[in-house]
Amino acid sequence: MKPIQVGLLGIGTVGSGTFAVLKRNQEEIRRRAGRGIEITMVADLNVERAREIVGEGTQVVADARAVIANPDIDIVIELIGGYGIAKALVLEAIAAGKHVVTANKALLAVHGTEIFAAAREKGVMVAFEAAVAGGIPIIKALREGLTANQVQWLAGIINGTTNFILSEMRDKGLDFAVVLKEAQRLGYAEADPTFDIEGVDAAHKATLMSALAFGIPVQFDKAHVEGITQLSATDIRYAEQLGYRIKLLGIAKRRDDANEGKGGIELRVHPTLVPSKRLIANVEGAMNAVMVQGDAVGTTLYYGKGAGSEPTASAVIADLVDITRLHTADPDHRVPHLAFQPDELHATPILPIDAVRTAFYLRLRVADQKGVLAAITRILAEADISIDALLQRESAEGENQTDVIILTHDTVEGDMRAAIARMQALPTVLAPIVSLRKEELA
Amino acid sequence: MKPIQVGLLGIGTVGSGTFAVLKRNQEEIRRRAGRGIEITMVADLNVERAREIVGEGTQVVADARAVIANPDIDIVIELIGGYGIAKALVLEAIAAGKHVVTANKALLAVHGTEIFAAAREKGVMVAFEAAVAGGIPIIKALREGLTANQVQWLAGIINGTTNFILSEMRDKGLDFAVVLKEAQRLGYAEADPTFDIEGVDAAHKATLMSALAFGIPVQFDKAHVEGITQLSATDIRYAEQLGYRIKLLGIAKRRDDANEGKGGIELRVHPTLVPSKRLIANVEGAMNAVMVQGDAVGTTLYYGKGAGSEPTASAVIADLVDITRLHTADPDHRVPHLAFQPDELHATPILPIDAVRTAFYLRLRVADQKGVLAAITRILAEADISIDALLQRESAEGENQTDVIILTHDTVEGDMRAAIARMQALPTVLAPIVSLRKEELA
Repeated sequence: MKPIQVGLLGIGTVGSGTFAVLKRNQEEIRRRAGRGIEITMVADLNVERAREIVGEGTQVVADARAVIANPDIDIVIELIGGYGIAKALVLEAIAAGKHVVTANKALLAVHGTEIFAAAREKGVMVAFEAAVAGGIPIIKALREGLTANQVQWLAGIINGTTNFILSEMRDKGLDFAVVLKEAQRLGYAEADPTFDIEGVDAAHKATLMSALAFGIPVQFDKAHVEGITQLSATDIRYAEQLGYRIKLLGIAKRRDDANEGKGGIELRVHPTLVPSKRLIANVEGAMNAVMVQGDAVGTTLYYGKGAGSEPTASAVIADLVDITRLHTADPDHRVPHLAFQPDELHATPILPIDAVRTAFYLRLRVADQKGVLAAITRILAEADISIDALLQRESAEGENQTDVIILTHDTVEGDMRAAIARMQALPTVLAPIVSLRKEELA
Repeated sequence: MKPIQVGLLGIGTVGSGTFAVLKRNQEEIRRRAGRGIEITMVADLNVERAREIVGEGTQVVADARAVIANPDIDIVIELIGGYGIAKALVLEAIAAGKHVVTANKALLAVHGTEIFAAAREKGVMVAFEAAVAGGIPIIKALREGLTANQVQWLAGIINGTTNFILSEMRDKGLDFAVVLKEAQRLGYAEADPTFDIEGVDAAHKATLMSALAFGIPVQFDKAHVEGITQLSATDIRYAEQLGYRIKLLGIAKRRDDANEGKGGIELRVHPTLVPSKRLIANVEGAMNAVMVQGDAVGTTLYYGKGAGSEPTASAVIADLVDITRLHTADPDHRVPHLAFQPDELHATPILPIDAVRTAFYLRLRVADQKGVLAAITRILAEADISIDALLQRESAEGENQTDVIILTHDTVEGDMRAAIARMQALPTVLAPIVSLRKEELA
């Protein structure tokens, strides 16, 4: 049988990795797929550089539409990124009857509903293993490996840049801004790191996973997104003393008790205290890991490189093999794009952040005088927020103020915010209260 | 469309879990699979108990062959276990044109070649996610998630009983026999624990994973198998002091340098020193985890419950959903049973244990006198075995003997065995030398 012919749109880091791995392991991949898989055409604005990467025997063009128009191309890989031209090209490839493989989480988290509907209409597959957690086959685990389960929650370190920064902050006791510069110098953070450090990239990925886990449409606009730019070395240190590490987690959680008993989904990205003894707390540097809790399987965890040329290429090629194997299957019986059949998605709402339930870490800078703790704990008690642990430092010599650290039990965020506002108004609370969410992940 | 009808052979722990989860999550599973999946017939010798478990509406019979003969049954789940009747029934189900789902690692590790050939002949699938590492979708990761990669090695904690025992031995400083009794009392070890504690169960699973990873036939008879019965609390303690934990690992490794350059596969199960800082070293109790190293993806790890009623049911049901989705696919383009196309399996040999390359931990009980260390280190130097670390304890008061602990760099096992024999012959070596393999898993 003649090889599956693949057209590649955009040959940057991941594209050149995909080209290289597909070539290096072509024999191994053919032995698995039962058919050769070849990138026969590449489109990139930088034709010269593209030609250098692919060498002879692969057609290089500047115009992506020439790839889509090529009737010999079976699968189009989109590695351009972003919402603009990438969206147009993906839709055009689908319209031309091509299967599509993409690593574009931003595109799918925002425009997934439209794109998957178009693909369904044309009977083609849009595969996106590379969009979440690089080479870790987490999309496959959620979509196929855990189909027996009601997923209860998932929580992931799904942005390598921020995990690298947090690991360095903890290891070296440095503040965010210092470590960010270092990460940029080492290539772990981009020149404009906004999407990473503000949590947007993680939220794109969490959005995709929430859809796969719970059978809901992608709803990036409903995600609560916080990054790590406000995090201080002080809180990382206190957390450590209390047996916790701070990780930027993307979390999606089923809440059957919420929304007046009609249920809801929590979808949120924020720095999170996690018990140090959990495996996920020990995922360091640019590595990724995703925990998935299912009602039958219990806790599972998936770990690996979340970015980089060849790890991401590993996921892109796994999708190519899947399509090569499965495109003969009756389209109605293929694995659905979002794990659930498209007419079986539910409208379970994403809960507003005020309705989220978590435990909290609070740091209050207080005057070192009688009655301070009583006032604080009274406010928490009145808000029905129970305290799990409390740590009061002795004042440093010559100072008459100190830190009070409080860990709470699970509480509704809105109640916590109201209580924080009341505590903040106390004359003995001398600085803005720091609050971080805490998850036991048990 | 009418539901897929499933017949269940053997309704013990995993079978009743499968029945319960399929019922509890039927709506969720139907939304994913696009079709209902129902166990409509159960065969178990204990008809009474089976009827109690399944209630009304499911036919219960004593004769498994009645299930296979039922033309309405699409998929047969084999949960009887063992090589005997289970083998006959699986082959009969295949011959009757049924797809088969099984958790029977022993059967597939030993008779897989025959069973998969029969299935191919009849155009049916034999799915076995539940055979390795319970609910962790590791078969799917190896077979579909990592298809881009040359797998370089895999290493797994794939037997919960032994991991529970090792965790307890380390935590409490107790010896094997004591902890085994405790594990039996708690239900973590069976009344006859031989298959678990002697490493046989782990070797069955490692055999299956080696086939999936490297494109070779299942060859359980070539696996090197050691259990944990000889392990002492002393060595666990010394390992800990040196920054290692001892885990029973199933290891499969590609060795392109071996077999006079023609390549070979290491396939072995044995207690192994692993650096304490690796995630896998921190997998405690009855949990399982598998590391897979691919040339593109780098290191990945998969973690979860490796046994138990519902975790294993999670894997069984994932297979049912896969079959439900994919049975319309052209059989030539389905995912092959052993990840590689059946006519593309290679005859790469499993290496004999003497040709395996690992580092070693040695403990020698020696006379506390001059020249002892010199004699030992000379033997190692002459065998070209280099020392990574050496720890000599002071003699206890009033004793004139002590322990010498040596960590070596990687060496060929045959050379190590010869050197150990020479050291053992030294008059100053007072007790049998303890040797354990050590893997950095980096």
